[in-house]
Amino acid sequence: MKNLTTLLPIKYPLIQAGMVWVSGGKLAAASAEAGILGVIGAGSMKPELLQQHIRKARSLTSFPERLAVNVPLLYDRTREQLECSLALGIRIFITSAGSPKTYTPWLKQEGATVIHIVSTPEFAQKSEAAGCDAVVAEGFEAGGHNGREEITTLALIPQVVDAVKIPVIAAGGIADGRGIAAVMCLGAQGAQLGTRFVATQESSAHEKFKAAVLSAGPGSTMLSLKKHIPVRLLKNRFYEEVRVLEEQGATRAELEAHLGHGRAKKGMFDGDLEDGELEIGQIAALVQDIPSVQELVQRLVTEQRQSLPGGPFF
Amino acid sequence: MKNLTTLLPIKYPLIQAGMVWVSGGKLAAASAEAGILGVIGAGSMKPELLQQHIRKARSLTSFPERLAVNVPLLYDRTREQLECSLALGIRIFITSAGSPKTYTPWLKQEGATVIHIVSTPEFAQKSEAAGCDAVVAEGFEAGGHNGREEITTLALIPQVVDAVKIPVIAAGGIADGRGIAAVMCLGAQGAQLGTRFVATQESSAHEKFKAAVLSAGPGSTMLSLKKHIPVRLLKNRFYEEVRVLEEQGATRAELEAHLGHGRAKKGMFDGDLEDGELEIGQIAALVQDIPSVQELVQRLVTEQRQSLPGGPFF
Repeated sequence: MKNLTTLLPIKYPLIQAGMVWVSGGKLAAASAEAGILGVIGAGSMKPELLQQHIRKARSLTSFPERLAVNVPLLYDRTREQLECSLALGIRIFITSAGSPKTYTPWLKQEGATVIHIVSTPEFAQKSEAAGCDAVVAEGFEAGGHNGREEITTLALIPQVVDAVKIPVIAAGGIADGRGIAAVMCLGAQGAQLGTRFVATQESSAHEKFKAAVLSAGPGSTMLSLKKHIPVRLLKNRFYEEVRVLEEQGATRAELEAHLGHGRAKKGMFDGDLEDGELEIGQIAALVQDIPSVQELVQRLVTEQRQSLPGGPFF
Repeated sequence: MKNLTTLLPIKYPLIQAGMVWVSGGKLAAASAEAGILGVIGAGSMKPELLQQHIRKARSLTSFPERLAVNVPLLYDRTREQLECSLALGIRIFITSAGSPKTYTPWLKQEGATVIHIVSTPEFAQKSEAAGCDAVVAEGFEAGGHNGREEITTLALIPQVVDAVKIPVIAAGGIADGRGIAAVMCLGAQGAQLGTRFVATQESSAHEKFKAAVLSAGPGSTMLSLKKHIPVRLLKNRFYEEVRVLEEQGATRAELEAHLGHGRAKKGMFDGDLEDGELEIGQIAALVQDIPSVQELVQRLVTEQRQSLPGGPFF
């Protein structure tokens, strides 16, 4: 099996997750500079805006080969997003929320490395069969979009590792070096961190959202919209409205009509902590500061080493 | 902080979980013989039956000091269960589902070691304040009774480790040495395994239930009865009936009336896989055989060592 630092041109086997409204060119460039994969979250971006972010990221780092784009395969503009990224030199894609069969063969022909995000061992096998170079296996505790089976990272990673030959990157519930060491003991070749990077100086999250992440406690998030597209949210008025609607048995259409559009931007980018949608992982409870990405990555590397015993535990 | 093998008279820092209808005297004795803590699950037992199981366990092991009793602090007979255990020489108690303040001071006066099961850092602190010697921190992926905050083991353990000074034992989602190494990297002093011990030769689970555990896949369990007492179940007809009733907004009393009594015995002990309640953890998906406890414990020790890298991961 390829080591993740062989498969990807990175110094440490860590990925800064692509996140809507949070991971633009600035955050991705800072991550690339710090030695890890810097991912622009294209989910919310029209192709023009995505191009701006890629150009910005390239201008801010001397390691453009460490830049990637995360593309949820949900929207009409997927093909356009992928094409404009390729045109600007991106050769690493993280895809999610759709079939890996649709775009992977073409992206591989274009010389790209393709990593698909999965929430079950079965989808990991489908991704491997579709030609993906690696998978990110993401557990129930992760922020944002989530699987329906509710498999946690601790239960998921060994199953995915046993199911495929390609490298497995763990995601969900990891915010420090202890978590990184833990998932690598489970057989993961690296870790993708999202929530932890929301609270960095270079993230595009609104200052109020960053502050809310720092204030989050153990029970501050909950998986929501289970009948729609499951998504883990920070509990606030928006979450509470959704919860009540779901308890009342609202249909998908009724939910969509009530929610309206732009709630994620309103919450995470504009800082409306009450009526905005705040996507964040359970592990927000461990996040206590807003370091620079450089400082954070060095800390993660050090902590990971300190979390391992000198010999066997017993 | 006391190492778990110093706090408890065991060879390896592992606990075979107390489980209703599954962990009687036979399983607990086999665990004690194998070098770990053997726990009789008293939840379903009247004091007379509990005494029988303690006597049986003592007759089957030359390490009676490695026997413990798990007592959920839910029922009228709690005090009686504790008293008859003390009378038969039990000096290690694992308590759950109630306040650690009620019985811990008295048990400590009687010379016992008390470990309380928690699902949040806050309850871990309350347990420490009540005088408990350690806590088992159990995540969302665990089988059987579960917390309301749905915090996964990967997210929970570091928070609990940061919150208390007493040893933390991880539970939920652990069925092999990879999982043990992982939670110990998170700062746990040991691990409690339940699901893995259901599928052992010495467990009292019905052969059909053991076979169902071996057949379980990644999405075969789900947290159920969330408005009642949350419990993770293997999906079957019983689970499906409960799910439909809950979706229809059944009250707690309506649910109880419909469910009736004895469903856990019916499923786990009598082997009725359709109409019985089958409590099991997500990690059942990793369980593939029915070894003896001796064989299993040796395998866990070996796997745990193999899961650790020689030096740092990176």
